[in-house]
Amino acid sequence: MDDRMSYSHGVEQSNEQHFLEQPKVLVLDCPAIFSFHEKKFEKKFHLLKAWESPLPMEEFLKNHARSVKVILSSFKTRITADILNLLPWVELIACESTGVENIDLVECRKRGITVTNAASAFVEDVADMAIGLLLAVLMKIPAADRDVRFKLWPQNMTFPVGHFKLREKQVGIVGLGNIGLQVAKRLEAFGCSISYTSRKEKHNLSSYKYYPKTQELAINCKILIVCCALTDQTHHIINRNVMEALGKDGIVINVGRGPLIDEKELVKFLVEGKIGGAGLDVFEKEPYVPNELVELDNVVLTPHRAGFTEQAFFDDFQLLVGNIESVFSTTNPLMSPVMELV
Amino acid sequence: MDDRMSYSHGVEQSNEQHFLEQPKVLVLDCPAIFSFHEKKFEKKFHLLKAWESPLPMEEFLKNHARSVKVILSSFKTRITADILNLLPWVELIACESTGVENIDLVECRKRGITVTNAASAFVEDVADMAIGLLLAVLMKIPAADRDVRFKLWPQNMTFPVGHFKLREKQVGIVGLGNIGLQVAKRLEAFGCSISYTSRKEKHNLSSYKYYPKTQELAINCKILIVCCALTDQTHHIINRNVMEALGKDGIVINVGRGPLIDEKELVKFLVEGKIGGAGLDVFEKEPYVPNELVELDNVVLTPHRAGFTEQAFFDDFQLLVGNIESVFSTTNPLMSPVMELV
Repeated sequence: MDDRMSYSHGVEQSNEQHFLEQPKVLVLDCPAIFSFHEKKFEKKFHLLKAWESPLPMEEFLKNHARSVKVILSSFKTRITADILNLLPWVELIACESTGVENIDLVECRKRGITVTNAASAFVEDVADMAIGLLLAVLMKIPAADRDVRFKLWPQNMTFPVGHFKLREKQVGIVGLGNIGLQVAKRLEAFGCSISYTSRKEKHNLSSYKYYPKTQELAINCKILIVCCALTDQTHHIINRNVMEALGKDGIVINVGRGPLIDEKELVKFLVEGKIGGAGLDVFEKEPYVPNELVELDNVVLTPHRAGFTEQAFFDDFQLLVGNIESVFSTTNPLMSPVMELV
Repeated sequence: MDDRMSYSHGVEQSNEQHFLEQPKVLVLDCPAIFSFHEKKFEKKFHLLKAWESPLPMEEFLKNHARSVKVILSSFKTRITADILNLLPWVELIACESTGVENIDLVECRKRGITVTNAASAFVEDVADMAIGLLLAVLMKIPAADRDVRFKLWPQNMTFPVGHFKLREKQVGIVGLGNIGLQVAKRLEAFGCSISYTSRKEKHNLSSYKYYPKTQELAINCKILIVCCALTDQTHHIINRNVMEALGKDGIVINVGRGPLIDEKELVKFLVEGKIGGAGLDVFEKEPYVPNELVELDNVVLTPHRAGFTEQAFFDDFQLLVGNIESVFSTTNPLMSPVMELV
């Protein structure tokens, strides 16, 4: 199928000129990657920005339905069967993030819609952030930085020391996928021992101890790093029981998705001192962050920024363009189709 | 020499009871380790705390001179020939820190005074802090944490991303000693290439590139991690020329000593955007921190806390006790004598 074909259904076409137009790409809400590469996308595609239209979403989608074969998706907006019902010509949903829990994959499979993601574009930077958050919590770096900025040095001599040496600690990785493996590799260099839980035991990684249950992992670890995909099975995988098992010196780091942790319980555990600290890049109802967390010094909070380096976004941009162009070309291959998680 | 011998010169001795007393140890100013282990020291030694005395320092030292064979030293107070002149019976200066630039080593050698330090007690925790500061600067973790706490998410969408991916970056270690080696080991796991400058090339580390000059190292690196000892030769080793060589995206981390960096120049470079960022645990005139630094988001400031974990202080406590007891015993060996740096 070539570019001309792709415009044969366009509702807006009125003359020959449209055959020379750029391929149309529907964007439901503003993706993070637009902060860096929006102009470059606009040079390649005619972007139909739903959030900029004065029309109600449904009307906007109906108007453009026949010209939309591709959706460029952020990780935020849910793409449900209802939305897809309005867009019967969609062939590809190209998601800017690695996680695609916002997309109804079962429905896509039924309709023969391909879903692509960021593959490994953000993997290493997210792993770096996981370690950055862990060290920031352990050494209370943001709290120390606040002390210095507020001129509380040296008066504030009660500033607490890091909980413990990182070396020789047992660290539990919740989800030993691409990101988890990179986190583990880094932690080994700090002298940590690695345990993990994952859908399946990885028999090729015999130096890492496998626990089928997260609670069992938590009993045996001082630190949990949560970096699995969000699915029905992993929702609230860090629950009250897991936090109790981790214990009052334990630290939780989340660079996955907010709902992987039962946030209400976590807040309670932190406020009551029943857990040692937390480093959170993601939250259950972003951008809402529970007020209790803001008061705590043993907590480090970042606004869903793990992996947000210019280079990672550039890699992601190239993947997105490649995936989108594969729809409008007979020769360009699909770059990063999502393997079934469902 | 036994405990009895060591008290034969004590000015305060008046009766037999003194022979049963604990060994006396002079402490000039309150060392950091007292935050955690002061009571334990007091169980073992009779501490002569100069800073708690109403007497002027000189008078205090003169009064106790004949009973002082050991000084327990922080890294802060300078121990000069003038002080040692007042304390002719000193045999050992046991320093709580690894760096001993506050002690006149030439004078000690002349007088046959042994100097001991923290050896490797803090090495791994300081290396962890170096990486923690680097990741905090790169990903602006404290600034992001402030944004979240001040409810600037999502309004503050201008929050800048990390400068660049850490992976594949050339990192320069200034001083490849115990700490530098641990920093390098950790950074390798992040996919960095390691270069270094040091007093001598380490021929057994052929995968690390050696530059005899710091400026040359800086030209070839994006990141400099300063962790060498402070000596006359390393004072202001990070000067204007080195910062210019590092360039406007470059990052400097200092977990060594403040005067290793020309702080006035660093502030100028940061304010003028001629360098990318800095992570500083140490400053030239602690606890003074230049006001300009407090205004910057690409700077992370911690109050000389690198390595301050409870476990590191416990290891240090054991070394200090061992070193001090070696003076009052014929059998206990010296634990960690300082190798000559002068």
